[in-house]
Amino acid sequence: MVRLGEFERIRCYFKPLAAHFEGALELSDDAALLPVPSGETLVVTTDAMVEGVHYLAGEDPGRVARKALRVNLSDLAAMGARPLAYLLTTALPGSVDEGWLVAFAAGLRDDQERYGIHLAGGDSVSTPGPATISVTAFGAVPEGLEIRRSGARPGDRVWVSGTIGDGALGLLAARGELKTLSPAHREYLAGRYHLPSPRLALGERLRGIATAAADVSDGLLGDLGHICAASGVGATLMAERVPQSPAVQAAAVDPKSRALAWAGGDDYELLFTAAADATAAVNLIAREIDLPLTNIGEVVSGSDVTMLDAAGNPVALPPAWQHFSSE
Amino acid sequence: MVRLGEFERIRCYFKPLAAHFEGALELSDDAALLPVPSGETLVVTTDAMVEGVHYLAGEDPGRVARKALRVNLSDLAAMGARPLAYLLTTALPGSVDEGWLVAFAAGLRDDQERYGIHLAGGDSVSTPGPATISVTAFGAVPEGLEIRRSGARPGDRVWVSGTIGDGALGLLAARGELKTLSPAHREYLAGRYHLPSPRLALGERLRGIATAAADVSDGLLGDLGHICAASGVGATLMAERVPQSPAVQAAAVDPKSRALAWAGGDDYELLFTAAADATAAVNLIAREIDLPLTNIGEVVSGSDVTMLDAAGNPVALPPAWQHFSSE
Repeated sequence: MVRLGEFERIRCYFKPLAAHFEGALELSDDAALLPVPSGETLVVTTDAMVEGVHYLAGEDPGRVARKALRVNLSDLAAMGARPLAYLLTTALPGSVDEGWLVAFAAGLRDDQERYGIHLAGGDSVSTPGPATISVTAFGAVPEGLEIRRSGARPGDRVWVSGTIGDGALGLLAARGELKTLSPAHREYLAGRYHLPSPRLALGERLRGIATAAADVSDGLLGDLGHICAASGVGATLMAERVPQSPAVQAAAVDPKSRALAWAGGDDYELLFTAAADATAAVNLIAREIDLPLTNIGEVVSGSDVTMLDAAGNPVALPPAWQHFSSE
Repeated sequence: MVRLGEFERIRCYFKPLAAHFEGALELSDDAALLPVPSGETLVVTTDAMVEGVHYLAGEDPGRVARKALRVNLSDLAAMGARPLAYLLTTALPGSVDEGWLVAFAAGLRDDQERYGIHLAGGDSVSTPGPATISVTAFGAVPEGLEIRRSGARPGDRVWVSGTIGDGALGLLAARGELKTLSPAHREYLAGRYHLPSPRLALGERLRGIATAAADVSDGLLGDLGHICAASGVGATLMAERVPQSPAVQAAAVDPKSRALAWAGGDDYELLFTAAADATAAVNLIAREIDLPLTNIGEVVSGSDVTMLDAAGNPVALPPAWQHFSSE
């Protein structure tokens, strides 16, 4: 009987992940309890991944588990929240065996330790369709210090962490494309696609400094469009300033790859705006957490997102992000 | 492009459902904010439904939406929590059209008004598989007053709200079975299966009175087994006392249907235990909220769940719930 199998699976694989979170009630109650520290606001986000749509069929289950967790932690980072706990809902087909579950749970355990979070609850159902993994992550931020998308003001600088384009080109590399790149570059890119690094330390330090933030999940230009739409502003980016890894630089000799690096998604870096006079503070954070933070442009009035080349001419942008930016 | 379609769907169908919940940030940010009133604990639960597994393919989308919401609200009721807000994650196949979404969103809107809750966030992805609807519901309960499954003590009375067996037999009726029943009985049962009534008013009033509670989702005997396992106790039920609707009584002339009424699930009534001297208080609640509450047995020491017939002899029980109770 399917239901019995699910009870047993929860007990074997998921209950140990909740053992150190009292509010999980050993995954044996109708709901979980989430104590929110006084003076803090709870931040909640949820992201689902479908096999064959959001991750490749046959992919390493531990890596799937960690990515499912990390894309949610990235959303918490973008709000300036520190992570507390998460819920896990799995809809799994009959083809999923115990070995898959062992590896999946081990991936979760690794990242629970890395990020100091615990499983608080969830649901486990069967499906005749592809595996669907849904994580809901909870974080906390001191009241009023959450970083929203809506606070960007003309004159603010636009910043981005790390390097941009790795995620989108990493998907191609993971699919065996980008044959002209070196194996090391392809491996680097695929790794960035498979296992993003949520910028939690950065998010917490940006409280009170960033006027708006988003994680780069839909693509640099798309997510900047979201910030601009929420804030009622436009932005001008300098194409040459957008930080790129050596692997993306190597790929970007091809104009299509270059456009994809700007417009593609899955980087999970933080894109944020800050007042011009916060530049020193931002640079100090970059040194403290040893993460490059690059000023790539400026917030302007209006609603257009424009990218300029080194000569100051607008760069023709792919249609996808233009749609995003007009939302 | 699929992603664009999803952005538009969120804007058209789901954003209006979040319009009156400030922390939803218009579904335009990386995460939602959930202010938890001081002195209260947040209660969180999540349940997923897969088309063809948890609801019948081709079913009325508004009813699917409302059931997805209500099974989660039922979990909040079982903890004694009042509902605050919910997240919605949909994984939908390409065959889902705008008409389906309109009806689905209308069902959510109806129940939002009925239960005073709001959409706070979620995710919308595409799937090549069956539609999968996942709801995460948030509630609040004064600190320390949440009703857990673990508090039942020998000598406590076992109570259940409403009538038992409607859900399991309702599934059969919805499938066109139970042909010997009258059309009115079949319609009643199918309605109870399609659209449960979360017992929120009861849950709130049971704070400080119930020693343990669960909602009847896995079946009366299974859920009582869960309470007993969590509490380290057993229970003895009187078969004749288990409240049954006229439709279930009509069906229960067949021993298989009778067993299914006890062991089947999806009733979403509240099963709870309370000290013997709380009987008058429980009966008062029943009158106040106009919902039958029936004392169906007693908590005993040990770990066995036994059901006795009118002559005091053990009733042979189907294997499914025996497994549950031995967990």
